[in-house]
Amino acid sequence: MTAKSQTLVFKNRPRIIAGMSVVGDKEGEGPLGKYFDTIEPDPKMGKSSFEKGETAMFSKAIEGAAAKAGMQIFDIGALFAGDLLNQLVSSSYAARDLPVSYFGLYSACSTMTEALSLGAAMINAGYFKTAACATGSHFATAERQYRFPLEYGCQRPPYAQWTVTAAGCSILADSGNGPAITHATIGRVVDYGITDANNMGAAMAPAAFDTVLAVLEDTEMKIEDFDGIFTGDLGRLGGEILRDLCRERGIELGQRYSDCGEMIFSSEQECYSGGSGAGCSACVLNSFILDKMKKHEYNRVLLMATGALMSPTTSFQGESIPAICHAVIMENDL
Amino acid sequence: MTAKSQTLVFKNRPRIIAGMSVVGDKEGEGPLGKYFDTIEPDPKMGKSSFEKGETAMFSKAIEGAAAKAGMQIFDIGALFAGDLLNQLVSSSYAARDLPVSYFGLYSACSTMTEALSLGAAMINAGYFKTAACATGSHFATAERQYRFPLEYGCQRPPYAQWTVTAAGCSILADSGNGPAITHATIGRVVDYGITDANNMGAAMAPAAFDTVLAVLEDTEMKIEDFDGIFTGDLGRLGGEILRDLCRERGIELGQRYSDCGEMIFSSEQECYSGGSGAGCSACVLNSFILDKMKKHEYNRVLLMATGALMSPTTSFQGESIPAICHAVIMENDL
Repeated sequence: MTAKSQTLVFKNRPRIIAGMSVVGDKEGEGPLGKYFDTIEPDPKMGKSSFEKGETAMFSKAIEGAAAKAGMQIFDIGALFAGDLLNQLVSSSYAARDLPVSYFGLYSACSTMTEALSLGAAMINAGYFKTAACATGSHFATAERQYRFPLEYGCQRPPYAQWTVTAAGCSILADSGNGPAITHATIGRVVDYGITDANNMGAAMAPAAFDTVLAVLEDTEMKIEDFDGIFTGDLGRLGGEILRDLCRERGIELGQRYSDCGEMIFSSEQECYSGGSGAGCSACVLNSFILDKMKKHEYNRVLLMATGALMSPTTSFQGESIPAICHAVIMENDL
Repeated sequence: MTAKSQTLVFKNRPRIIAGMSVVGDKEGEGPLGKYFDTIEPDPKMGKSSFEKGETAMFSKAIEGAAAKAGMQIFDIGALFAGDLLNQLVSSSYAARDLPVSYFGLYSACSTMTEALSLGAAMINAGYFKTAACATGSHFATAERQYRFPLEYGCQRPPYAQWTVTAAGCSILADSGNGPAITHATIGRVVDYGITDANNMGAAMAPAAFDTVLAVLEDTEMKIEDFDGIFTGDLGRLGGEILRDLCRERGIELGQRYSDCGEMIFSSEQECYSGGSGAGCSACVLNSFILDKMKKHEYNRVLLMATGALMSPTTSFQGESIPAICHAVIMENDL
């Protein structure tokens, strides 16, 4: 392990002044349904392909977040965004209609916290007054790209996860109302040798564990200092692995810990080990978590989105799955 | 057009203290051959696939740059990196062996200047003392992924470009010797409606033009203030389009302007409109440009890498090609 800090400290308290969540039907029917801003019954959003539908959801999340912040799109200082599609096309095609500087980011399902980390860092340093941080994912486009088109009707193992159809956007600003982002812990790539691309929770849990240790060491905070701790999308199985890894080090995550992928679907929804996808932590943050922080039910939250960094090509070539976890700490003004 | 600045200013003068270029055989035989650090005769680098060879080149560039800077890998504050492969696997698999915080970035062939922009911004703000900024590309993996496997022997139109097999890495630091990065201009996504994925120079030239205008307006510099102006990989055709677009606005780029894609291959090498790929601007910067700056033949350089943000899927679905261009200004201490 390292004594070098992986954590950025934001003394100027850049904050999340608005968040927007756009989800699909299935996500809307899940336990968090009432928290989402809009539930879209049409997975193509009236477009001619699932990919164009994903882009439309992405745009809706950004435009909606800007509107909730009382801003014109033009007023956004920069867009920090990424998604799961090859060449980040849902982000980039959404950015095409926005007259703003655009940073394309990719760390798979941890892209939301990568975006929040960089957005908060750049605002804290005074480069921008505002930034939009957005990610999304889509069940049908992810299945087509990573596994098989839906039409094939392939079976899935019980530890598989279900890619969430959702987009989320947070508007960060140097002032205003909303929880401050006080720290970001930038993950390192961790690979424990998992080769089954259906078992991403197991591949990602060690990365989350590596980042938990870095957060605690760098910030000198304790688990008890957080009202809520959320991983991005380890799912049921990966979440249990993270609890076990922590327990072996004497760290008890307890009731304050949940996984966004586990929260978003109920066990009756047949999503196996839970939700996944870059849109998963993005939509849970920009609905449930921000809502609970607004009501002061949570005052300090650790959000750790996790990403599996393989591609279908590397899986075919027998490679194991490297993973990463970027974390942000959000805190209400007290 | 916008009156909003797209340009970040780095008053603390973060600098490039070392650069490493690793290229393939064909690039080594080109006009810039003598400038490259290493020329690799084996495109697989002794590995079992082209993709693994690309990752090995990527690792060699990072490790070589750190060694030239007199650093241990562990001393690098953060890695800012990306590449052209789906899910950025050559970056991420290279990062797996590095014990450092990793920001995965994607803006196609403009990823090198996106990485330099963010790396310099984060060092300038004091978040890191050092950073490695790296990108790469590979002819065989890009052909397989974006067009057809080499074995098909497909014909190419005369305006097509040839993906460069190369990786480049710059080590940035808050002090030391080497040219300072004084500004970064973050591009917006521009789409002029080009739909032919073989004609990327034409798709990207308007993005370069948009960024040239932003650089001149934001910094109040003139074209004559630069000893060298380089686009990433517009190629012969795209470079001419950029000259024409500028000329219509009364801006004469003149002899100081070259395109890295045009420079890297001679016309006898049958690379059609020239080189392309995220590794193109990366290897030209970290060899020829840094060399000329070290010798004070150039004292102020504008590097504008350009990226085409489509995917094969969006092309199949009839979409046009959005493009982006991020620019950095590098300056010798005088």
